[in-house]
Parts: sequence; structure tokens; C-alpha cells
Amino acid sequence: MRILVLGAAGMVGRKLVAALLAAGQVGGRAITALTLADVVEPGAPGGSIPHTLIAADLSAPGTAESLIAERPDLIFHLAAIVSGEAEADFEKGYRINLDGTRLLLEAIRLASGSAPYCPRLVFTSSIAVFGEPLPAVIGDQQEHTPLTSYGTQKAICELLLADYTRRGFVDGIGIRLPTIAVRPGKPNKAASGFFSGIIREPLAGLEAVLPVPDSVRHWFASPRAAVGFLLHAAGMDSSLLGHQRNLSMPGLAVTVGEEIAALQRVAGAKAVALIQRVPDPVVAEIVAGWPKAFAAERARALGFRGDASFDEIIQIHIADELGGHIGG
Amino acid sequence: MRILVLGAAGMVGRKLVAALLAAGQVGGRAITALTLADVVEPGAPGGSIPHTLIAADLSAPGTAESLIAERPDLIFHLAAIVSGEAEADFEKGYRINLDGTRLLLEAIRLASGSAPYCPRLVFTSSIAVFGEPLPAVIGDQQEHTPLTSYGTQKAICELLLADYTRRGFVDGIGIRLPTIAVRPGKPNKAASGFFSGIIREPLAGLEAVLPVPDSVRHWFASPRAAVGFLLHAAGMDSSLLGHQRNLSMPGLAVTVGEEIAALQRVAGAKAVALIQRVPDPVVAEIVAGWPKAFAAERARALGFRGDASFDEIIQIHIADELGGHIGG
Repeated sequence: MRILVLGAAGMVGRKLVAALLAAGQVGGRAITALTLADVVEPGAPGGSIPHTLIAADLSAPGTAESLIAERPDLIFHLAAIVSGEAEADFEKGYRINLDGTRLLLEAIRLASGSAPYCPRLVFTSSIAVFGEPLPAVIGDQQEHTPLTSYGTQKAICELLLADYTRRGFVDGIGIRLPTIAVRPGKPNKAASGFFSGIIREPLAGLEAVLPVPDSVRHWFASPRAAVGFLLHAAGMDSSLLGHQRNLSMPGLAVTVGEEIAALQRVAGAKAVALIQRVPDPVVAEIVAGWPKAFAAERARALGFRGDASFDEIIQIHIADELGGHIGG
Repeated sequence: MRILVLGAAGMVGRKLVAALLAAGQVGGRAITALTLADVVEPGAPGGSIPHTLIAADLSAPGTAESLIAERPDLIFHLAAIVSGEAEADFEKGYRINLDGTRLLLEAIRLASGSAPYCPRLVFTSSIAVFGEPLPAVIGDQQEHTPLTSYGTQKAICELLLADYTRRGFVDGIGIRLPTIAVRPGKPNKAASGFFSGIIREPLAGLEAVLPVPDSVRHWFASPRAAVGFLLHAAGMDSSLLGHQRNLSMPGLAVTVGEEIAALQRVAGAKAVALIQRVPDPVVAEIVAGWPKAFAAERARALGFRGDASFDEIIQIHIADELGGHIGG
């Protein structure tokens, strides 16, 4: 099967490509060609599967048509402007996150004019489609109440994905990723950055700032679990979804205090001592509007599997990013 | 205040314009100018308020900018391709119902580049944003699960309206209208047509076909109640809405059997005898996926008032459409 990955240069995209190459197949079908696209040209993957690397702006005219010209059987659409940038640049957020996705869906729809074409499309949505007021545990029929333009754009794409699928133009599955932890790389300005920072930095022997109380609860998945969700969505029997094509993934509901306790168990008191509590009311207020936990019953029943514990999430970071060794 | 009505030539639009002219004000502010637009030029309203009549396609480039050039303080956006046509013509439905609304929102946003501009925008959404599986009574936090492209387009517009409002570009209120009954005019091919037809036709001395069992329950408002919802949304304190800018309106949950009993009370057995039961499994299946009843608690708490009974809905039709006389 031919696979197209949009957003292949991002953190999740790179890990997905590595997993695809390692597996060599999806749902029992061998991968015969891989097209990797992003706004910057993705790095060449290893392995023996023929691949094409493309730098392209999905929102530019003709890009979507050209990306699907070879009729990939499976498309992963991970490309997006992140939450903070979509809020700071209204037009860019709508152009990339909404128009880009719609152009992709339209290109797929119109491609079937010449010969039947209905690829599996795995789309990464976000828990940002939900915002306060919310129940303590969000069920599978929760109304979309985004409080950001990013969340609005993801919610709209979920609706488009479901309608294009209902009409038979595409075989779409949208998965609402939990917040990824431990996110590798440098600290960034994202309001959610500290959830990873208070683990990643101490494991590297660096200080980390914690701007919210230990009682703050949030919803997490490791990068490895996120890739697992994508692969499961790619290979599953999509007829089981009916008309509800978008799913909240099974993350872990963990408080900041529980994160710190897990860090203590895995890396000891010395690591925990590197966390500096510097309350920031602005960050605390932003985070207060975010979802805290999901039931994710549909996703679990459909075979999606998340992380077992936050200890495991930390161990995955140590194994996949630190070569198995705690630094410092 | 200046008012723009988009979709002014439609059934609800015409009744809204008549109500605006009769009131002469909205929320205590006198109406100084009225612009009426639709795909066909709306008929000239009576009264002494200066008016402009425009035939325009909202989805054509430049139309939205031109329609808001005089910076109306209040905009009613009722223009839409109906459900059946949006399902039959995929591209036209998305062009008019989604792109048209987005072009309007963008024109409003960009108009504030020269001087501050944030009009009240009253948008008619639909209960078609919901589809089975649904609870017997739909609450105010129900997930959007449209099963038509029309419902998808309305759900997307609700999300856009809320985000543009949150960003301060517009002061938007979306109201989900119940199915309008008794819809005046000729029978049409809409799957919902019989809900009105079994009342309207017998009141005119004509036979009507009933394709579903008496037990089918649905959610109704009279044209007069629908206009009342629009006027209330136009004049209310929108700060009470918070970030949840879209509301299910308080309709009446009535079975077909209850409709017929009301017809019997209002117009007698002779009228009821004109209803021909001709079961149609296709129509019955379509209707089975529709919402049956709403709690509409938020709307009621915010002062929206629906019809008191289906008897009243029939009486409104006799008063407003039949000159107070039952025909036949």
C-alpha cells in the first residue's frame, strides 16, 4: 500500500514514520511507497521502502491535488498550526488548519471523478475541541465547546471528515490526541509546556518551572502511545465507527502532584528537587479551562490502548529520548 | 439602527421584515434603515422606514463586503440552501451554507480595519445539527452529530460564529430553529413536509398524505414563534450567553397523533377525514433519525418563548394565512 504522511517533519510525524518503517505493513498490507510532506522537507527515513520527500504548503492552490496524485491508500493528516500560533495569527490558523484540511478533502473527493478513490484518512484532532464548562470526566457524546481558534478549526475539520465519510468520498477517522508527555526537545512558550518540562528538564539535570498548583489535573499520552493510536486507526475496521468518525483517545488523567510522585519513583528526590514552584496566575487560568479527564469508552472498545501509568510515560521518555539513561 | 436581513425573500424572512416594520424598533432602538437581500430581489415592504432591496449571491466575491458597506448595527442571516438541496448538490450546499456565512463573517471582521465595527449577528441554525443516536430529550450540551451535509454546514457555522464572537469580531447569536409548522404554501418534496401538510391541506379542504405512524414525535414552532425568537435574539443582552453563542429554541414536542387530535379540536372530524394514511418506509426511516424533543433550558432562562400548544400553532396558521377562516 501507498502511504502519504502530511506533517511528517513534526515530532509525532517523525515517530510515526519510524514506526511505519519498522513495521513494514499496516493492517497486514505491506507498505510499498511512502510520501512524506511538511512545510519544510522532512528528513529522509532509513529503510528500503521507496520514499518521496516533499516541502509543500497544503493550503496553496494545487498542493493537495499534487500530493494525492499517486492515490495513496492511506493518508495520515497531522499537519497543523499549533494552538498558540493559531490564536496569535487568526488568518494563518484558519488557512492552514481549516482550509488546508478542506482542500485535502476536496482533492480526494474530486479525484474519484476519473476512477473510484476512497482512501483511509487518519486525522489528528485535539482535546482542544472541548473547553469549560465541562464535566469532571468527559464522555463520548460531549458537545464541542472550543475556547480557542485552534480548537474551533479542529472541531470543524471533525465535522467535515464525518460528512465526507458519510457521503462516501473518504474513509475518515479523527482521533483526539491527549496532551503529549513527555514532549521531547527544548522548553517552549506553550501554556501546556510545563506538564512535560517538569519531567524532561529534571531528567536532563536541569531546573524546571512549575506555574500551577500540584492539584491541577490533565489528560496525557506518551509519544509512543500517540503513534500507536495512529497505527490502530490506520488498520482498524472503520465500519465499526458508524457515522461517528471522531474519537477521544484513551489517555491518562494525572495531576501535577502525581506526575511529581512518578518522577520521584523513577528518578529520585534529586530530580524532584529541580522543580521550582513559581505560581503564574495567567497560566493557571488558561489551564483551568482545559479538559481534565475523558471516559474514552468508545476508543477503548474499538481497541485503542493508552499508557498504563505515568511511571511508564517517564520510562518511555528515558528509553526513546535519553538512550535509557537519566542525565544530569 | 440600520438592519440587514439576508434571506429576506424566504418565508421566515418575509414575516420577520413585516414584524420589524410593525415594531419600528429593536431592543428600544428605532429602525432607521432596512436592507433586504436574497438571491431573488425581495418584495418591497410597506411602511415608512427607508429600505434597499438587493438581489445577490452571498457566496460571490465582494457581495458580503458590499452588503455590509453601510455598517448595519444588526444583521439577520437567514439565507441558506435547504436540507434536501444541500444533500442533492454537495458543492452548492457548501458554497452557500458554509462559504457564504464565512464570507459574511470575514467581511465583518475586516471592516473593523478602518473603524471599530462589531454588529449583532443573528444566525438561524437548525436542529439538523443533531442526529441519531440521541437521547429522548436533548439537553443544552448535546454533541453535534449531523447526518446531513446541511446539518454539517449549520454546525460548522455555529462554531465559526462562536469563535468570531469570542475574538471580538462580531456579536453573534445562533438560534436552532425547530421545524416550522404550519409552513404556509404548497406541499413540497421535503421529507418533513407532511408535518405541516396534514394540517395545512385539510384546513384548505384538501387531502393530505401521512407517510409515518401516529406515534412519531417531532419538535415544532410556528412561524410567529420563529420570528419572536429572532427578535428576542436581536434585542437581548448577549453578554448573558458567555462563550456558548448557539441555542436550541423552545419548541413543542408533539406526536403526529397529537397534531391530528389538535386538528380535530380546532377544525373538526371533517378536516381529520382528509388525512390519508399511506405508509412510506423511506420517509419513516429518515424521520426516525431526527431529534424528537429538546430541554431548551438555556433559551427559556434567557427569555425565549415558544408556542403554548399545537392548538395555538393551528390557530396562528388560520389567523395569519387563512384570514381567520377555515376553507374547504
